[in-house]
Amino acid sequence: MAGALSHINGNSVLHVPRRPNPRQFPCRVFKVSMSCNQSYWASINSDIEAHLKQAIRIREPLTVFEPMNGLTFAAPLSTVPTLCVAACELVGGHRDVALPTASALWLMHSASYTHEHLPLMHSSRPKSDVRHLYGPNMELLIGDALIPFGFELLANSDDPARNNSNRILRVMVEISRAIGSQGMIHKQYHQVESYQSNNAKSDHLEKIEQHEGALHGCAAACGAILGGGSEEEIEKMRRYGVYVGKVASGVERNDKEMKKLVEEMRASATKELRGFNEAKVQAISNYFESNFMCAQV
Amino acid sequence: MAGALSHINGNSVLHVPRRPNPRQFPCRVFKVSMSCNQSYWASINSDIEAHLKQAIRIREPLTVFEPMNGLTFAAPLSTVPTLCVAACELVGGHRDVALPTASALWLMHSASYTHEHLPLMHSSRPKSDVRHLYGPNMELLIGDALIPFGFELLANSDDPARNNSNRILRVMVEISRAIGSQGMIHKQYHQVESYQSNNAKSDHLEKIEQHEGALHGCAAACGAILGGGSEEEIEKMRRYGVYVGKVASGVERNDKEMKKLVEEMRASATKELRGFNEAKVQAISNYFESNFMCAQV
Repeated sequence: MAGALSHINGNSVLHVPRRPNPRQFPCRVFKVSMSCNQSYWASINSDIEAHLKQAIRIREPLTVFEPMNGLTFAAPLSTVPTLCVAACELVGGHRDVALPTASALWLMHSASYTHEHLPLMHSSRPKSDVRHLYGPNMELLIGDALIPFGFELLANSDDPARNNSNRILRVMVEISRAIGSQGMIHKQYHQVESYQSNNAKSDHLEKIEQHEGALHGCAAACGAILGGGSEEEIEKMRRYGVYVGKVASGVERNDKEMKKLVEEMRASATKELRGFNEAKVQAISNYFESNFMCAQV
Repeated sequence: MAGALSHINGNSVLHVPRRPNPRQFPCRVFKVSMSCNQSYWASINSDIEAHLKQAIRIREPLTVFEPMNGLTFAAPLSTVPTLCVAACELVGGHRDVALPTASALWLMHSASYTHEHLPLMHSSRPKSDVRHLYGPNMELLIGDALIPFGFELLANSDDPARNNSNRILRVMVEISRAIGSQGMIHKQYHQVESYQSNNAKSDHLEKIEQHEGALHGCAAACGAILGGGSEEEIEKMRRYGVYVGKVASGVERNDKEMKKLVEEMRASATKELRGFNEAKVQAISNYFESNFMCAQV
């Protein structure tokens, strides 16, 4: 993990601790462990990272683009963008067509992570031990800038030669729903609430799990849309993503519950992958399996 | 102003003071005075408001949609969305085709206003006297939700019957640039900087003016794109918007400078409107003239 983040940040000073404090919210940030056999997924992450570095190259005004660059790569890795590219390839699409969308999803994850750790006054949010290298003002502003920048990457990926406008627009609707009031924001609301109120904790945790599932489902569906998948394939990928996301949400459970969930998800997820290219299914499954293992650690 | 906002909020409890504290940033929030002869503009605002109320109807979960509704209508009126619709009509388009984009611009203005007044710890931002009815956590989250929600409205306005996908995508790129790192965020950065450092104040104020101009220019260009304007008309509208925005930025100047700017802008703006439908030019000019007057108050 540390190695992966050092590589991504490309410098020795990190904005955030390499592993977020697991006590901060009652869910664990999904662990992406490079020690597992994940060369396929590592290659996807590396391509998304290269795409993003090209898009947010450091330029004038440095006061804006330096922290924008730093905060983009400071958040812990998320499985959401990776899943988008994998789904695109699984339905037979070329990786390149999914990279702008995966980059947009990465940016939105970074924006969410940055804002999640903002030190607000008069707030009952859990205290974060994240270091604020750029200062809270700039981190608020950059978080705000990353979201539209993600949409800009998406809209720019419209290519008349590919006649893909309708796919891009469909992906935009999917993503805006997943990260807006009906998605990521709602999840964050439940994260804060679950921390504050012990009474309705299980309700909040269920919502967190649902939303993380929906976000991963959205990413996988978007990948399938961009890759030219059929409607059936798109919905299969969405369901597959939901299973991955539910485990990825890392909502704390006791061992027995966790084992049961993992078994259920494994079976359901495997079912969704039937009928796709065997070699690719193997690559995507390996990762999921290793994440199941990670989730059980 | 008070009347207009009460009407928009539809209730007697306002989240924010009806007029923001002009000392907060070294620029004045543009005044939209209903006492001027602005029935054309009032009708546009009323239509955008109706469109938004339909889009963000209060529903479950109330904890999310109530503050989302409240914060959408709590910010002072902005000329940006209105200008978008006016530009669409000026190039011969129907008002309806510009309403989703104008609503998105409204939402982005509300998001920006909400975040601008967040009480951050360890921050040298000027203290805001805005009341935080929903609490800082929720205001941070809702601000984050309003931006993707704006993009969702935009993407949803794609209509195969109108074959307008390319226009919608073009508008998305325009808006994401205008509100992202190259636009609104950069302006806010300069607002904060100009407050903190007296040394380079004039540089910062110039940037604020440029960005407000660019944002208005973007809105007008988007209206013209959606209304089916030619490339020449789109660029005319963009330049017209830039003039409106520069005055609207309300950067504090001494009387002599202000008068000079207003005269220059009036002449340049009038030039850009030559060749369009006379009656519509009159309606749009009336508003601009009255704003010039307001700006000189």
